[in-house]
Amino acid sequence: MELNSINIHKLKKIPVEGGNVLHALKKSDKGFKKFGEAYFSWINPKSIKAWKKHNLMTLNLIVPIGKIRFVFHNTMYPEVFRVEILGEGNYCRLTVPPNIWFGFQNLSDHASLVTNISDIEHQDSESDKAEINTFPFKWSEY
Amino acid sequence: MELNSINIHKLKKIPVEGGNVLHALKKSDKGFKKFGEAYFSWINPKSIKAWKKHNLMTLNLIVPIGKIRFVFHNTMYPEVFRVEILGEGNYCRLTVPPNIWFGFQNLSDHASLVTNISDIEHQDSESDKAEINTFPFKWSEY
Repeated sequence: MELNSINIHKLKKIPVEGGNVLHALKKSDKGFKKFGEAYFSWINPKSIKAWKKHNLMTLNLIVPIGKIRFVFHNTMYPEVFRVEILGEGNYCRLTVPPNIWFGFQNLSDHASLVTNISDIEHQDSESDKAEINTFPFKWSEY
Repeated sequence: MELNSINIHKLKKIPVEGGNVLHALKKSDKGFKKFGEAYFSWINPKSIKAWKKHNLMTLNLIVPIGKIRFVFHNTMYPEVFRVEILGEGNYCRLTVPPNIWFGFQNLSDHASLVTNISDIEHQDSESDKAEINTFPFKWSEY
């Protein structure tokens, strides 16, 4: 899948006394397909989780805590990577269609949290994994 | 609505190298109705957000960070409150049907985060608010 099919959408933070409210995903949002599952994934300081490719699942990725670099790759273009940095300072939702390799790295000194709201439930059989050195992205350069 | 109609469901934390994965809600989970919206609500240390009642919305409340006391109330039984403490140490999902008054309080020294996955989109017109002293719950006692 082409990397420009990944959609980035700025999300609202609403100031509320006692603690802010942060939007994530509405049924009426442009590009929303259907709900399958919501789950959280922590990523520890200095950690990298890479690579994974979903063959059926569309992801909606939101980072309410910390700062995470997401890297996307299409094997048709071996040297090309798309990078998006999400977190408290750039509070957005990434909608990622299936058939794109991706990895992510914590850029914060603390643990960061990704929420994924996907259109189908998790099943190992619809995803592929690859070792971090499978694709020539230079993770240390930031 | 009767307070025993609030459902509590233990959620899985899956150990993963680089950061754990935490379940939240699947389409196939018992009691799941439909997806309307997902959003986050921070609650600052020592803060209380109370009271609110949704007239149409069913809530799915999950606390991936911190420790929060939720208090539920049905005005048919003026002295009765149902209390559930959720957070990292008791990682559960609360499913709350409409027509129940609720409030919540941060019991952690740090900010805590609630995720709500609701069956309809947020609209102010379907909820009522009341001042904290409207119902005789003793928030300071814990």
